[in-house]
Amino acid sequence: MASTALTTIRSNCRKVMCIGRNYADHVKELNNQRPKQPFFFLKPPSSILLPGEGPVLRPAGVNMHFEIELGLVIGKTVKDLQTEDDEEILQYIDSYLLAIDMTGRNVQEEAKKKGLPWSIAKGFDTFLPIAGPIAKEKVRDPHNVELFLKVNGETKQEDSTELMLFRIPRQLSDISKVMTLEKGDIVLTGTPKGVGAVKTGDVMECGLRIGGEEVEEARMRVE
Amino acid sequence: MASTALTTIRSNCRKVMCIGRNYADHVKELNNQRPKQPFFFLKPPSSILLPGEGPVLRPAGVNMHFEIELGLVIGKTVKDLQTEDDEEILQYIDSYLLAIDMTGRNVQEEAKKKGLPWSIAKGFDTFLPIAGPIAKEKVRDPHNVELFLKVNGETKQEDSTELMLFRIPRQLSDISKVMTLEKGDIVLTGTPKGVGAVKTGDVMECGLRIGGEEVEEARMRVE
Ligand SMILES: [Mg+2]
Ligand SMILES: [Mg+2]
Ligand SMILES: [Mg+2]
Repeated sequence: MASTALTTIRSNCRKVMCIGRNYADHVKELNNQRPKQPFFFLKPPSSILLPGEGPVLRPAGVNMHFEIELGLVIGKTVKDLQTEDDEEILQYIDSYLLAIDMTGRNVQEEAKKKGLPWSIAKGFDTFLPIAGPIAKEKVRDPHNVELFLKVNGETKQEDSTELMLFRIPRQLSDISKVMTLEKGDIVLTGTPKGVGAVKTGDVMECGLRIGGEEVEEARMRVE
Repeated sequence: MASTALTTIRSNCRKVMCIGRNYADHVKELNNQRPKQPFFFLKPPSSILLPGEGPVLRPAGVNMHFEIELGLVIGKTVKDLQTEDDEEILQYIDSYLLAIDMTGRNVQEEAKKKGLPWSIAKGFDTFLPIAGPIAKEKVRDPHNVELFLKVNGETKQEDSTELMLFRIPRQLSDISKVMTLEKGDIVLTGTPKGVGAVKTGDVMECGLRIGGEEVEEARMRVE
């Protein structure tokens, strides 16, 4: 069941900014170019799926991929932020989320080929399952947590956020020079290697470990 | 100055869905392909600029284009809508807006070339000036209103919404099969021909006419 806190997070969310290609091995597995600077795209708040709300829905004809990511809930306005400092950004973070950036991979590949927007590929209803929130105090260093995702019991993704190409200060700084991050906005920080397809009936389990210990609030199961 | 109604519209907005390439002559002027079905992309609510809030800000190095559009404010949930009926959609529309879908054209062209998302090109702060709202009752037929935009007194865009390639029922139907439209969401219905660049200091004036008469609430001036 979704916590009240998580329900509030969804109702307060006005944009979801996602960082693309932020782990080197994930960039390689999709045959993409390693970016010279962070790039990002929007998912709509309507795609958020809370625990207990049911399965991720695969749209007809869509090759649906999972991407496990560390999410940030923004706690106060971030605008034109100039920093590369890990400590300085903590004041802008309210809490953390575990999130799956579900992606219509064939829809995205088609869009990329045609130079079209990614909003459809990334924006279907139920394409953003989240768990948490994880209190800021629990996460001593957001660049040192382990994310994992299993499909039907088999581990598919399992990596540390220390592998991020662009760290969180750089992400928030770059986003905030384009668009103001408002209290309640969500930022997804990119996915490590191992993304893949799920079909109707598959069960995704995922979680987040800090210092080898699993954080209870950040466990999620999606059918 | 922004009306209370407009301030409320901004605070209730959780996504802005924009239709691309919805007027044949605009498709031609940008050397694009005429789409077989409506396609759409998100702008963030943080890009909304209300009357009296100041100029549209041109980010350094950005070739900033105007696109005048008719906007819809969604009045109730639209999900999996099946209709091509002009009357049926009226129940989902709360009111109308005049909107400028400001676009970083060079940023967008670069994104298109590289297969990257459009979110940056479309999402800068101040890139969505809006005016209104225009009461639903004032607009007998949203496919028969005239939009115009002038730069420094010179008319740049002036066309009727009857030229839309995909009419509003089809737009809402197609969007709602991908993502649920929620009360308060905004839909931009595409721009007619005549888009072009503005630079710092230029003054855009725009408005909306019904049966040849200008609708007062839908006049906007942006420096
Ligand atoms: Mg992702
Ligand atoms: Mg949005
Ligand atoms: Mg447009």
